[in-house]
Amino acid sequence: MLSDIEIANAAELRPIRDVAAETLGIDEQHLVPYGRYKAKVDLGYLSSLADRPLGRLVLMTAISPTPPGEGKTTTTVGLTDALHGLGHRAMACLREPSMGPVFGMKGGAAGGGYSQVVPMTDINLHFTGDFAAIAAANNLLAALIDNHIHHGNELDIDVRSVTWKRVVDMNDRALREVNVALGGRANGFPREDGFDIVVASELMAIFCLTESWADLKKRIGDIVVGYTRAMAPVTARELKADGAMAVLLRDALAPNLVQTLEGAPAFVHGGPFANIAHGCSSVTATRAGLRLADYVVTEAGFGADLGAEKFVDIKCRKSGLRPDVAVVVATVRALKYHGGVALADLGTEDLGALEAGMANLRRHLNNIRHVYGVPCVVAVNRFPTDTEAEVEKVVELVAAEGVRAYPATHFADGGTGAHDLAKGVLQAIDEPSPYEFSYTYPDDLPLAEKVEAIATRLYGAGHVTWDAKARRRLQRIERDGFGELPVCIAKTQYSFSTDPGLVGAPSGHELHVREVRLSAGAGFVVVVCGDMMTMPGLPRDPSAARIDLADDGTILGLS
Amino acid sequence: MLSDIEIANAAELRPIRDVAAETLGIDEQHLVPYGRYKAKVDLGYLSSLADRPLGRLVLMTAISPTPPGEGKTTTTVGLTDALHGLGHRAMACLREPSMGPVFGMKGGAAGGGYSQVVPMTDINLHFTGDFAAIAAANNLLAALIDNHIHHGNELDIDVRSVTWKRVVDMNDRALREVNVALGGRANGFPREDGFDIVVASELMAIFCLTESWADLKKRIGDIVVGYTRAMAPVTARELKADGAMAVLLRDALAPNLVQTLEGAPAFVHGGPFANIAHGCSSVTATRAGLRLADYVVTEAGFGADLGAEKFVDIKCRKSGLRPDVAVVVATVRALKYHGGVALADLGTEDLGALEAGMANLRRHLNNIRHVYGVPCVVAVNRFPTDTEAEVEKVVELVAAEGVRAYPATHFADGGTGAHDLAKGVLQAIDEPSPYEFSYTYPDDLPLAEKVEAIATRLYGAGHVTWDAKARRRLQRIERDGFGELPVCIAKTQYSFSTDPGLVGAPSGHELHVREVRLSAGAGFVVVVCGDMMTMPGLPRDPSAARIDLADDGTILGLS
Repeated sequence: MLSDIEIANAAELRPIRDVAAETLGIDEQHLVPYGRYKAKVDLGYLSSLADRPLGRLVLMTAISPTPPGEGKTTTTVGLTDALHGLGHRAMACLREPSMGPVFGMKGGAAGGGYSQVVPMTDINLHFTGDFAAIAAANNLLAALIDNHIHHGNELDIDVRSVTWKRVVDMNDRALREVNVALGGRANGFPREDGFDIVVASELMAIFCLTESWADLKKRIGDIVVGYTRAMAPVTARELKADGAMAVLLRDALAPNLVQTLEGAPAFVHGGPFANIAHGCSSVTATRAGLRLADYVVTEAGFGADLGAEKFVDIKCRKSGLRPDVAVVVATVRALKYHGGVALADLGTEDLGALEAGMANLRRHLNNIRHVYGVPCVVAVNRFPTDTEAEVEKVVELVAAEGVRAYPATHFADGGTGAHDLAKGVLQAIDEPSPYEFSYTYPDDLPLAEKVEAIATRLYGAGHVTWDAKARRRLQRIERDGFGELPVCIAKTQYSFSTDPGLVGAPSGHELHVREVRLSAGAGFVVVVCGDMMTMPGLPRDPSAARIDLADDGTILGLS
Repeated sequence: MLSDIEIANAAELRPIRDVAAETLGIDEQHLVPYGRYKAKVDLGYLSSLADRPLGRLVLMTAISPTPPGEGKTTTTVGLTDALHGLGHRAMACLREPSMGPVFGMKGGAAGGGYSQVVPMTDINLHFTGDFAAIAAANNLLAALIDNHIHHGNELDIDVRSVTWKRVVDMNDRALREVNVALGGRANGFPREDGFDIVVASELMAIFCLTESWADLKKRIGDIVVGYTRAMAPVTARELKADGAMAVLLRDALAPNLVQTLEGAPAFVHGGPFANIAHGCSSVTATRAGLRLADYVVTEAGFGADLGAEKFVDIKCRKSGLRPDVAVVVATVRALKYHGGVALADLGTEDLGALEAGMANLRRHLNNIRHVYGVPCVVAVNRFPTDTEAEVEKVVELVAAEGVRAYPATHFADGGTGAHDLAKGVLQAIDEPSPYEFSYTYPDDLPLAEKVEAIATRLYGAGHVTWDAKARRRLQRIERDGFGELPVCIAKTQYSFSTDPGLVGAPSGHELHVREVRLSAGAGFVVVVCGDMMTMPGLPRDPSAARIDLADDGTILGLS
């Protein structure tokens, strides 16, 4: 089979204005083109659709993943192509990839095989400049903070308690911990600082949770950048940064329209981390999609314990959106992994391990149905090493849980490989749901109890413990009036616990909270459990070394 | 009179595809649109024009400026509009503005008054993403350097001698001097580092001096990022960074087409600093302009001692381009400033100071004609405080030098305010030139003598002195085989000397070289004289605080 970039480069793309007109009925005048194959859809036009009924929302989530991933984006694209191919007005809403992993290890994030969004190289690189705009606005605020301190520090900001970090869209471990403003009087007051990758920034989360310029500016103004020496929060508004930052994000806020390899429309817009942020593409794109299409398939990051939880408890809570059905991507590989098989041995048939690993998927299915109250189906994303017996076993094990599972081969076959899955999704949407949609916890629960609700109801944890400093920070946040915010748990995606090696469905474990951070503009409190990487590093042999530009401009080696 | 942004926001822009078709004969299929009013022109199409005869090249330069500036960009636009209005196929080639000054003090850089390029807010902010692409490629190389050191340092890079800095497109003094890779083993080897503003990067200079993807990749590969412990240069090619960096700059290399307020075409592409780099917009844009139009007006940064010198000795030398005529922008204000009047008193008539200040302009006129061998005219860019007597006096003083001066009111009146200037420029082009074009020094002169040639022939300096370290570095650069490169002098733009307070035409002063830097990819050796700021700071009251976004998306407060 050809590589992702070979397939993408060989594809004949249609002009995006034709895709917009024919699949979504959008006239060219409402598009802001970025080249011939990418366009932003005008926000004014999208507002004019406010009276349209909303389509049905399909949430793509997953089993706790293996390190190589289970193909959630690929399945989102495959399902969209299947619905599109079956004659439905369907579209995908995906996250924008970060450039960091592109040059590091993971490669691109625009789907794979014959289920990709294109133009693949554009989407994986600068795309329409949204991430650069977010970085610029983020770093303007950082510069204004240090500039304020330098020129007299009227607000009495404590240099030891500045929490706002600078960002780059790059894997660069050397920037994790830095000292800035060295070199004497002219360069400001020295302090300890650090850089995050753009996708880990609060501004990325804000960008993905806002739906208007006015709300964008308001949320930016609410950002708490640090504290005074008297420990009062200092906001971006007090630094008069909100207007200029909103200006920098003005154009970026309109969702980006591209196409799948099979010509279905897709919004690719915003891309917050699923640990320190909520891991979902923009509300703007999702709502726009629901007004333009009958079916919107959108993914949430990581497994259903993290991505789907945040989709429900943060994105849905703040936007009023509701998923009609969840698709849980599972693979034979991941099930065996959760049954205790080592990563290197996942290509070997092992029905016993598969059955043992079902414990992980079972808990996710129960959480989705009985905690979030959302009906679900399972997509078995097939890999070449899967045996027929294994795939049949998965379907059977899932059926025993009262859920239908659909093997799908969209990676190799495109949309037709997901026709059964699409029909199953449509059936689940059309059936009356036996569940009632619900958040995991109410707004007015104290922050610590929100964490406990997630830990015990979703993760199977026995109890929650706190670093003393984290506990104090939590109290400070509640005292400052942010106790009604939802929490955003940052923990490993590989386990229900905070130990990435604890596969399957661990129970009674301890959830230890190491750190608490306020994202007042985004409107959530980040609760850090275990190690959390907000600035990845490059590997020993980074993919950057294999990426090349031919003399004729062809891009080579992106994967 | 309305503010720049009020004028720009009130303008009725024409679709860029119509401007391209009607003014330059470019079919829509050769444009890569970025919205309706900006487009990149396809590089393949531009290559297909290689056989076309070139138009005439007008170099816009200036007297040594006052701190508020003399309106070189504004005059470039005004002259282009005048030529366009007189029925000629003319276009402007301008530098892209940096966002740093937009949020700092200077404001935007897309012309002013009724001589602007539009869309003004787009051009001053993200535009088509070129600067973000340059920053990403620059910072990828930086990450690869520290990553290489972290993973075993096979090339034996000396962490004390890494010269490649990270960049942001922001005025951020806190990043001038930083320590990176702190925090322990996982974060790499700690070292001293610093950030420059994007426009001060070698990569920006490379971007503006290359004309093909192959040459771009070659120049990037040639970049010397630092030295081994045995003091051997380490290149970006050895780090396998050249391919991925070229990929990041692939699309940016095509020039950006916009329009003036009067509908004339303009390329706005690339924007290197005029001190640490050569201060001219891209060769790609200039050559494309000369193939598409009969007259191309392009500006070089700072005064004619810096910008025009680098235009001739770096941009022309490397590209083979030749200016047909130079326009020297002078103002009554600048002449009085060089006659000793304080900045605050420049609004008061003072014919004596004007005459004394003529010494500065006289030296520039002589340099341009007798050193570079380029015929020239003077544009007297009128300010409201100029008296008629003062303007007449300038014309008379310039005439005494054998040069024609044309008062122009394009800021207030648009292109018609520069009709006389345009006719004068056309006359100068049509007259046989009594001068012969020449570089200030030949390639094979030793580097130190190149600096002496510039200092004594152009600056009126008596002699050149060197910091011992700078002298040693120069010797090292020659030993490493870079002795044939041109030099790029970084010094204040306010004086022929290195003392910004030494106005007029100082003579016999000392030019002291503080530092020498190799830009092996760009192909020049930077010679730093006096203080040089490669990362500006924000002022006490930054313009960011006045920039705002209205609820309807209107951008306010940009100047």
